[in-house]
Amino acid sequence: MTSPTDSLRRRLAALLVVRASGHLADNQRRYPRWELANDDLRRLLAEGVGGVILLGGSAAEVRLRTRQLLAWAGAPLLLCADVEEGVGQRFEGASWLAPPLAVGRLHPRDRAGAIALARRYGQCTGREARQLGLNWVLGPVCDVNNNPANPVINVRAWGEEPQGVADLAEAFCLGAQGEGVLCCAKHFPGHGDTASDSHLELPLLPHDRDRLEAIELPPFRRAIAAGVASVMTAHLLLPVLDPQRPATLSPSVLNGLLRRDLGFEGLIVTDALVMEAIAGRWGNGEAAVLALEAGADLVLMPADADDALDAIVAAVRSGRLSEGRLEESLARRCRALESLPPDPPDADPTAPLGGLSNGPLAEDQELAVRLLAGSLQRQGPAWAAAGGKGEGREGGGGGVNLVRVDSGLGNPILSPLAPALVLPEAAGLRTRLLEGRSPSPWSGDSEQPLALERLGEGPVLLQLFVRGNPFRASAGSPEPWPQVLHQLQKANRLAGLAVLGSPYLWESLRPLLGDEIPAAYSPGQMPQAQRLLLESLGFGRDRAHTANGAGDFTD
Amino acid sequence: MTSPTDSLRRRLAALLVVRASGHLADNQRRYPRWELANDDLRRLLAEGVGGVILLGGSAAEVRLRTRQLLAWAGAPLLLCADVEEGVGQRFEGASWLAPPLAVGRLHPRDRAGAIALARRYGQCTGREARQLGLNWVLGPVCDVNNNPANPVINVRAWGEEPQGVADLAEAFCLGAQGEGVLCCAKHFPGHGDTASDSHLELPLLPHDRDRLEAIELPPFRRAIAAGVASVMTAHLLLPVLDPQRPATLSPSVLNGLLRRDLGFEGLIVTDALVMEAIAGRWGNGEAAVLALEAGADLVLMPADADDALDAIVAAVRSGRLSEGRLEESLARRCRALESLPPDPPDADPTAPLGGLSNGPLAEDQELAVRLLAGSLQRQGPAWAAAGGKGEGREGGGGGVNLVRVDSGLGNPILSPLAPALVLPEAAGLRTRLLEGRSPSPWSGDSEQPLALERLGEGPVLLQLFVRGNPFRASAGSPEPWPQVLHQLQKANRLAGLAVLGSPYLWESLRPLLGDEIPAAYSPGQMPQAQRLLLESLGFGRDRAHTANGAGDFTD
Repeated sequence: MTSPTDSLRRRLAALLVVRASGHLADNQRRYPRWELANDDLRRLLAEGVGGVILLGGSAAEVRLRTRQLLAWAGAPLLLCADVEEGVGQRFEGASWLAPPLAVGRLHPRDRAGAIALARRYGQCTGREARQLGLNWVLGPVCDVNNNPANPVINVRAWGEEPQGVADLAEAFCLGAQGEGVLCCAKHFPGHGDTASDSHLELPLLPHDRDRLEAIELPPFRRAIAAGVASVMTAHLLLPVLDPQRPATLSPSVLNGLLRRDLGFEGLIVTDALVMEAIAGRWGNGEAAVLALEAGADLVLMPADADDALDAIVAAVRSGRLSEGRLEESLARRCRALESLPPDPPDADPTAPLGGLSNGPLAEDQELAVRLLAGSLQRQGPAWAAAGGKGEGREGGGGGVNLVRVDSGLGNPILSPLAPALVLPEAAGLRTRLLEGRSPSPWSGDSEQPLALERLGEGPVLLQLFVRGNPFRASAGSPEPWPQVLHQLQKANRLAGLAVLGSPYLWESLRPLLGDEIPAAYSPGQMPQAQRLLLESLGFGRDRAHTANGAGDFTD
Repeated sequence: MTSPTDSLRRRLAALLVVRASGHLADNQRRYPRWELANDDLRRLLAEGVGGVILLGGSAAEVRLRTRQLLAWAGAPLLLCADVEEGVGQRFEGASWLAPPLAVGRLHPRDRAGAIALARRYGQCTGREARQLGLNWVLGPVCDVNNNPANPVINVRAWGEEPQGVADLAEAFCLGAQGEGVLCCAKHFPGHGDTASDSHLELPLLPHDRDRLEAIELPPFRRAIAAGVASVMTAHLLLPVLDPQRPATLSPSVLNGLLRRDLGFEGLIVTDALVMEAIAGRWGNGEAAVLALEAGADLVLMPADADDALDAIVAAVRSGRLSEGRLEESLARRCRALESLPPDPPDADPTAPLGGLSNGPLAEDQELAVRLLAGSLQRQGPAWAAAGGKGEGREGGGGGVNLVRVDSGLGNPILSPLAPALVLPEAAGLRTRLLEGRSPSPWSGDSEQPLALERLGEGPVLLQLFVRGNPFRASAGSPEPWPQVLHQLQKANRLAGLAVLGSPYLWESLRPLLGDEIPAAYSPGQMPQAQRLLLESLGFGRDRAHTANGAGDFTD
């Protein structure tokens, strides 16, 4: 016999979206603290939990994983992922596209072209997500990145002013939803003008309503008008709307601004409740109740799903949350699922991932190249013509490839065969890797900050991988790159500069370069971006066959 | 119409084993120079190529991949992988076991126990390989590692003397073949006493026949008596048997020693012909012809499959190779395939990898722990009680976790969440990573080799990941670790030592340690080995929940 409480609990469980690894096995989880073990996951799905957010795993694994989750649930599920930069950003084997700001920077000079690219970006992402069994793309980012110091949005944004973001976020949404997935406009009401990371603390947005209407809200209005299926709330405080609670937990922001003023009738989902800015302050169960009370329909990544569900059920039974109100949320969820086409059939063994079986389709590969080529910036001569005091370059020992990256460990942008390493190595440069855990490369002398004697002789190609990733604080890095450029140029040892990621870093460094220094910028950091950038500098053409050492053919 | 040549070519193609990535998509290949693109692979399989060696990809991907290859071939295939240390060594999600030498070191004091473990090792490997659709395990290594400077065998061997290796290689073979896969005894006639790497150059074994009978051959004789399905040839020169040609290409070694003297009637397969010691010297097509002429049945990884096949067909048509002789090889291949049980059925969506769907079975997990626990060595007190001049350890800033590894990039043993990093970090140590591309950590002073001022203050935990991997030359590393131990102890800063991998390095360093220094050794390097080792030193018990930073929950 099912008690009324059991039945209520089971129905309300559909409002939770829990976190799991895209990998099949528990022992493959990268973040076991945050990713449910399979026994718990299977139980929660059997108990009615209605959605899963996946991170990690290759395209093949996620394809098997989504089938598995549906079989465990025995009912339709919301299956989502943070695939803002193409499905390949998270799941290897699919398309990994240049970050949205690459398109955003095109918009001012070619609005129609940028819109067309953003639409293709959405089509590619929606089609590939669906191929893997995902039905909910957690994008587009609708934040206007008008604060270059923003550590968490940065190149994830579609632009730096509202009109461009609105155009491109709308185009992405139309493209992706046209392929049969749900989209999610985020992070409401706008996370672009924050200088702290809500993963770690609660940022504050001190703007009044006029300013919000001018800058933050237009992209959300456009996405809503375009029929975006869901909106994700931001963990930030807007004192003008609610001096007490962050947007995620604020009735003024969700029921007031989003539902009433903007007329949004789709799904409102919280950003991950587990984030410190929420979980650390309000507690797990209470945060979930407050979010639903404020107007959210779905609770994403509660720190503990059972606790959150218990708290929600208790709040309904105590009358604090209205059951009718939650029935509306359940109905919205059902309508969203029913709006989707049926799952593609299981493919035959020769093409187990359907159209993605041998990686991206030709048209999506072309899109990836076009996005990178169109956002590449170059200045100065080609590498071969650059300075460097006449050291031989082809014979080996001819210089230093100084590569700065947040972390070299487990980083998909930098394998031992990454173009950023092998192309300069094929030109005789010796790689020196500076990552967060390296022995200090600094001299202690602020005028000559690099301890050059530890890095090797010869001309230096400096490659900086920096973007405003959460947790890494690299956007506000205190590393003295301007001084390093001065130092290397003074010593006549700067032979080239590559910046991959943040346009703000590139724009601060390029004026410091002499005309004779080859330099280039790409907003992308993935291997394909490295190859295009270095080829533009004159590396590696027709060298693909010699880039690896002859014997280097196994692990 | 099929011409006779076409028909001959198609039949002989079955003698080739080509290399492909275990990943599904071309853009996921880690070694695109060595791994066939899907278009070529599909064509070659349709043209009759009879086997594929796979590297890379997770268990889930390889499961899809083997199904795909069989569908492309439309006929049974030999599907193999170098899973000498468990299937998880190559394919994430399966069991990654301590290297065979861990069992070999048990053998002298507990022969029966070691044999039982080797048999379970084989069972685990065979069962998991079959679960992924692989039917040919390229093990056991039958080489007797009696040369500690061996850069390519080392911990891959089952022991350092012939009786132990024979016992354990036989047990592995019986265990694995009992699960329904073929095994492969390698590298005939013995690669254990070489000090150079045949991946790069041709090593020379100067021993006479008596010595071979005493040291090198007993493990192969035992494996053959146990019914091993195949033997892999070594790329090394044995002047006493054949002053001209390496074993792989030598009729005296293959037809003479292996077939006639040892009476082996199974499949003889070459080691990868693409290796520089062969391909660089004899050329691709000629090497394949010479190998078959010498008595090999199967040609592994020719540098170019079409060229090799053309050369073989031409040699048959010219009468240089006898068609009858090759029919014998084809018949051996057929018998081997027919000896195997039918493939397991495709699993249901809730368990897409059958028994491996949530990682290794409990019994295999227990085996993995037992192998590591049984081979762990400890000396000195626990970490908490060790020196370190009283710096606070819990509050952060309390010392240095100095980790030496060949490469930090793309290395499955060292993700940012690897126990070797997070357990010491949870104890307040700051990681300093020394990898092949790091800025130099050396001072230039041979008495005080470490530039300590670049590494940070406080007590130092030194973790050395060193094993005799091919290409890395780390077994013969010139790094001055003995001097570093003296330096750190003299400065009263050595707080602990961990060696993971080579027992020879451990044995050379442990006598240098004062009694008050906590120290431990594991032959394994994988995360599980790190955890066990550091827990034995006193790190990380009950800290699993706090080992990650609170906010660190996404890429």
